[in-house]
Amino acid sequence: MKRDVSETLAAGPSCPIPFSDYPQVLMAHGGGGKLMNQLIEKMFLSTFKNSLLETRHDGAVFSLGNTRLAFTTDSYVIRPLFFPGGNIGELAVYGTVNDLAMCGARPRYLSAGFILEEGLPMETLWQIAQSMQRAAEKAGVQLVTGDTKVVDKGKGDGVFINTAGIGIIEYDRPIAPASVKPGDRVLLSGDIGRHGVAIMAVREGLAFETTIESDCAAVSGLVMALLEAGIEIHCLRDLTRGGLASAIVEIAEASGCSIQLEERNIPVREAVRGACEMLGLDPLYVANEGRFLAIVAPADADRALQIMRAHPLGEGASLVGRVTDDRTGLVSLKSLVGTSRVIDRLSGEQLPRIC
Amino acid sequence: MKRDVSETLAAGPSCPIPFSDYPQVLMAHGGGGKLMNQLIEKMFLSTFKNSLLETRHDGAVFSLGNTRLAFTTDSYVIRPLFFPGGNIGELAVYGTVNDLAMCGARPRYLSAGFILEEGLPMETLWQIAQSMQRAAEKAGVQLVTGDTKVVDKGKGDGVFINTAGIGIIEYDRPIAPASVKPGDRVLLSGDIGRHGVAIMAVREGLAFETTIESDCAAVSGLVMALLEAGIEIHCLRDLTRGGLASAIVEIAEASGCSIQLEERNIPVREAVRGACEMLGLDPLYVANEGRFLAIVAPADADRALQIMRAHPLGEGASLVGRVTDDRTGLVSLKSLVGTSRVIDRLSGEQLPRIC
Repeated sequence: MKRDVSETLAAGPSCPIPFSDYPQVLMAHGGGGKLMNQLIEKMFLSTFKNSLLETRHDGAVFSLGNTRLAFTTDSYVIRPLFFPGGNIGELAVYGTVNDLAMCGARPRYLSAGFILEEGLPMETLWQIAQSMQRAAEKAGVQLVTGDTKVVDKGKGDGVFINTAGIGIIEYDRPIAPASVKPGDRVLLSGDIGRHGVAIMAVREGLAFETTIESDCAAVSGLVMALLEAGIEIHCLRDLTRGGLASAIVEIAEASGCSIQLEERNIPVREAVRGACEMLGLDPLYVANEGRFLAIVAPADADRALQIMRAHPLGEGASLVGRVTDDRTGLVSLKSLVGTSRVIDRLSGEQLPRIC
Repeated sequence: MKRDVSETLAAGPSCPIPFSDYPQVLMAHGGGGKLMNQLIEKMFLSTFKNSLLETRHDGAVFSLGNTRLAFTTDSYVIRPLFFPGGNIGELAVYGTVNDLAMCGARPRYLSAGFILEEGLPMETLWQIAQSMQRAAEKAGVQLVTGDTKVVDKGKGDGVFINTAGIGIIEYDRPIAPASVKPGDRVLLSGDIGRHGVAIMAVREGLAFETTIESDCAAVSGLVMALLEAGIEIHCLRDLTRGGLASAIVEIAEASGCSIQLEERNIPVREAVRGACEMLGLDPLYVANEGRFLAIVAPADADRALQIMRAHPLGEGASLVGRVTDDRTGLVSLKSLVGTSRVIDRLSGEQLPRIC
């Protein structure tokens, strides 16, 4: 009765050409760079083709009845499970809450799917669940539905968590790469690189003079403050896998607008800069879990900065760039010494399993 | 800078007593039986405490604006990835579609979160993605948002998929265990045990005279037909992990009503019965992926059965039991030879990684 798997595989269209170069999934396919982008484009977007998916947003935005909703999902596979400044449970709540916020939505309901590895200490799971609940309370969301699966020892890695989220869009403003216009200002909500460096430091067993903690937090409150103040936000993007550089490249590509960044305005803490040098990382590409870019109409940039700086999660906010008249969709960075270079997606993989 | 994990763990309330008996997660914690029920109750329901979660339904049901929605999630960790009658991709679509249907909702939008193991053949992923799209088309849903993570070789198992789903509740009828009343009739949509037996047969390398294929399918069309016909449905439940027995025990417990089942009315195909005997399985506890129970008002039972039998996925539908006046919340089964026995949750684990 066993059917040959290859027989099942033979049905349907064949795999798109570029994958002949990559017969197998590599770690870099999850790293936030070029390979991941290619995988998502060729594998998933081409297969699941629909208008909602094609916006290349952090979530899908649609209307049901008279209500406009955002819907998003992320799986969390970070290791170690506990790190300075947080754990996988908090991350699973904040990450999805932030994706909803990046759609301009007020996060409301989360689902939680756990994939547990046989042998996981029950105490660890308990602590993670407790953290998730505390994070949900902080972020103003409820965990309303869930699922638990267990896989054999050696077929998982402690615990993986998926969360999906639903948020309500209360302000009717098209927040998406397509809304970005020449002249728009690029605002960054604070210093970058802490999450990735905190994780790498733990993994590598590095000790610095000061502890670098992840910036992991829910930024939805800050985003709602901007929306409530009527700031004309054109696009929002959180700076997770691939960091600030990958986020801005994605926006530039999707909008077809070029963006110029000023390195001297991008805050990086001294300890993070030092750690990056030691680890051979570029802070521009390092993951964050509580930082985002807001691309706003030029007339609203100053007011938006004031609002951000008045919020605990935006104290270090700064104007880091602007959208130029050039329509090549490229990102350039003016360095501290005044030279300019083009910013691209990472071709390899920088930090595996960072979220 | 490394903080001791035990220090982080020390914060917050301590783990509930029963887990001292289970210091680690066991395979049975995901098996659909007593241990899984205990894990969900003590670990997750007690931590994420809220009214939506407490309904113990297949999904959360709530209103946003003037729209009533259902929201649900499931992770899929089945092995092998391809099996007679389906693969993990179809299962990931149909399983979540069915959970929405069990809330009485019309499934609309799905998210998809992939956790890929380094080394997964790209061709396998392509075939799974193609299957998901075909399944989504069949079920009338769109895959609108997603996420891809990659874990190191040996830290996953090919591919795990999480889907979350949103459906619209068009018929204002409280479909939940709490609506079950004495006198209600229990309808089963068709023969049971095929999914679990198909998987086990592949794993054990068994050959039967006829191929047993999984029943994996989207039952939402059939459920919508019942709702459109105005059938007074009190509760719906699909018969996945733990099979018919676990589903009915859960409903009886949650409703506080006792239920009496008639074994002779529960269809089991000859090949499935034979395989179960060979494998030492009880078909009542074997997982299905296209079968459900509908508990309906007695006056509507005949009409509901007619509607079910007229649908390709309900051809073998049958009246399998009734809700009694007794309020002990127990399930009893009248066997073929006329004796009666109490049906309980499985205490151990029957079929690991069946979905």
